[in-house]
Amino acid sequence: MLPTEIIIRKRDGGKLTADEIAAFVRGYLRDEWTDYQAAALLMAVFCRGMDFEETAALTREMMHSGETYDLADFGRTVDKHSTGGVGDKVSLILAPLAAACGVVVPMVSGRGLGHTGGTLDKLESIPGFRVRLETPEFLRVLRKLGVAMIGQSDNFVPADRRLYALRDVTGTVESIPLICASILSKKVASGAHALVMDVKTGTGAFMATLDKSRALAKGLRGVADALGRPVRALLTDMNQPLGRMVGNSIEVAESVDCLRGGGPHDLRELTIEQAAEMILLAGAEPTADAARDRATRALDSGAAWDKFRAMVAEQGGDVSVVDNPSRLDVAPGRKDFVAPASGWMEVRDCRAIGVAAGVLGAGRLRTTDAVDPGVGLEMLARVGDRVEAGQPLVRVVHRDGRGLEECLARLAGALGVSAEPVAVPPLIHERMG
Amino acid sequence: MLPTEIIIRKRDGGKLTADEIAAFVRGYLRDEWTDYQAAALLMAVFCRGMDFEETAALTREMMHSGETYDLADFGRTVDKHSTGGVGDKVSLILAPLAAACGVVVPMVSGRGLGHTGGTLDKLESIPGFRVRLETPEFLRVLRKLGVAMIGQSDNFVPADRRLYALRDVTGTVESIPLICASILSKKVASGAHALVMDVKTGTGAFMATLDKSRALAKGLRGVADALGRPVRALLTDMNQPLGRMVGNSIEVAESVDCLRGGGPHDLRELTIEQAAEMILLAGAEPTADAARDRATRALDSGAAWDKFRAMVAEQGGDVSVVDNPSRLDVAPGRKDFVAPASGWMEVRDCRAIGVAAGVLGAGRLRTTDAVDPGVGLEMLARVGDRVEAGQPLVRVVHRDGRGLEECLARLAGALGVSAEPVAVPPLIHERMG
Repeated sequence: MLPTEIIIRKRDGGKLTADEIAAFVRGYLRDEWTDYQAAALLMAVFCRGMDFEETAALTREMMHSGETYDLADFGRTVDKHSTGGVGDKVSLILAPLAAACGVVVPMVSGRGLGHTGGTLDKLESIPGFRVRLETPEFLRVLRKLGVAMIGQSDNFVPADRRLYALRDVTGTVESIPLICASILSKKVASGAHALVMDVKTGTGAFMATLDKSRALAKGLRGVADALGRPVRALLTDMNQPLGRMVGNSIEVAESVDCLRGGGPHDLRELTIEQAAEMILLAGAEPTADAARDRATRALDSGAAWDKFRAMVAEQGGDVSVVDNPSRLDVAPGRKDFVAPASGWMEVRDCRAIGVAAGVLGAGRLRTTDAVDPGVGLEMLARVGDRVEAGQPLVRVVHRDGRGLEECLARLAGALGVSAEPVAVPPLIHERMG
Repeated sequence: MLPTEIIIRKRDGGKLTADEIAAFVRGYLRDEWTDYQAAALLMAVFCRGMDFEETAALTREMMHSGETYDLADFGRTVDKHSTGGVGDKVSLILAPLAAACGVVVPMVSGRGLGHTGGTLDKLESIPGFRVRLETPEFLRVLRKLGVAMIGQSDNFVPADRRLYALRDVTGTVESIPLICASILSKKVASGAHALVMDVKTGTGAFMATLDKSRALAKGLRGVADALGRPVRALLTDMNQPLGRMVGNSIEVAESVDCLRGGGPHDLRELTIEQAAEMILLAGAEPTADAARDRATRALDSGAAWDKFRAMVAEQGGDVSVVDNPSRLDVAPGRKDFVAPASGWMEVRDCRAIGVAAGVLGAGRLRTTDAVDPGVGLEMLARVGDRVEAGQPLVRVVHRDGRGLEECLARLAGALGVSAEPVAVPPLIHERMG
């Protein structure tokens, strides 16, 4: 099967067989396909699409390109994936919460890039916390606690790394089937039986419009179905940061608040909703109401908090620090961004808030950049709040003024005060059960 | 302007500016664009198309990537391009014929590849004929005779060479805008003011169906318009070889017949029609009838033949050989392919006839292959002829049996005898004036 024959079939709108897709993925990893042939096929896929069956075949091939975790012994494991946003620390709370409700959660997460934070970066702001566990240790923690949160090993879905790098420089990132295969290959390789998908929508999301987010959610559902993996998807708002904190240490502190039954309402509500979906997928409760009640109780009883502390301890983290979050590394610099006028708070560009935190050092532009755990933004008002001129809207947490000026300039572009009342976006736009 | 920005604009169906197209072509030639980025853009162009203005901008950029001939002094020069076929030796007769009618014809031709023959290969079967003339000599011959027939110099439209090589291995050959830019960049770089396009259609053509051939002709017309170059296009039949001969020396001999007022009817008629179009484009006659009459007279009076002999002499060829074509290098081997049954002759696959001549040595699979001028096929019957079982349909001219068996097998697949009368395809399907 020549590469050009396969490229031409897709280019002309045809459906690729599993064998053709295997020839592409394996051939590319073995350098039998050149970069330019892979690029041509990726663009043909972008333009002509792939159906669920083709995308499932691509997902399987990518998944089998490296190491996978076999968690068949663990029953109906459930993982969660978020398409990424600003201040999204749900996973830190959700994984131990679901585990406290009887769900086995083998969570393999990524690092932040661009305007979005990453679960691994947040976990690593806990002194000693190890996100790289060898397989036997990962399985031991998972067996003991029902939850473990780790990063990808070097040999984890290498096909995704190579294809993503090529997509990034050939204008083929925003393809629904390619995005679905990238996400699902990693989630399925991590051994998850079922998945909750948090598809963000809004100015801080990968997909800015509800239509595009819906298309991605439908794609994820359809492909996961073809792979025999049950999926429940939520379309959730990313027109402003989730919770108050945007950073690493300060997001951990906020997560600890939430795990102890406090924290901002939006963060608590979204976490409970996702936990309920995970509980339903695991079959641990029969109805959505029962699942939601169970998650709420686990949060308020301290069961989720206990599970989190146990996980931190098992993965080498300093429990005394999470017990007393003021001991987390938080930079001392403070500067308030104030309302330029009186009126109603609005966020014109949530992505720019993420970038504003990034320039302080909280995020990275390149995968090789280092992250400063101690900096970030505290949102002091929410979209739709009545604010007065001079009132602080954002507290900037900076280290020795690094990136402060650019941060404030970006906040000035991202936030505004409207003379008219501003509509408050819903937290959850849609569900796909 | 980043490559990905340009790729993404085209991928999303946008129109590229002349600056963006320039950034692509120049960037690619300077290796600032990688092969995979160029491949992604070519596939995006394949899928989303380019309008006449974009394609004209691409054509201009490709044209200016190397040496061009400035023929402004020569007035309304006219060239001809054929999309290629089997037995198409029209250019050999047409260029001197049009010159004999007062048209200035700066003809830059190519070599054969795959199943199609090439004008340069045919000319080179005339001993001594030089198709590589330095620019001053090309201009001298053109000034003296009104016609010169040459090949491309090494620095002639290098962008086309590089882009074509990439298209060939990335499944992006059959794109109308990319084909138009490839053809027209070379024709405009050769200094032609106006063009006659012979767009072949049928089983031996680059575009097999009338719809596709029509789309190509429309593209060529539209882009040439945008470039300010008048074009007249003929859609002509390529469901069987043109004339009787398929090869090199034997096609030259047939062309000499035609230049002396003889030769097969289809070849003579098509050549006169194309000459008439060139005469009209040059403004040498006011009406199609007058142009056709003038071309017919130039053929019958010997004026075209004289022009051909003068061109052969000026370009170093042995005139005594064309005066006596039996002195051309023709291989001695003969083998007849005979009708397997009685009925009506049909050609199922004209391309396969071209390949059958190629395997004897008349053509090349790779651009680096050598061609044997002396071998080929003589078609002894035409589509729709009544034939009897055992009657020779094709005389194979081979050298010591080289490729003979494969040639006969391919002919058996390409030709057939039908029990029912077979419709004779028209020579000219359509005209676009």
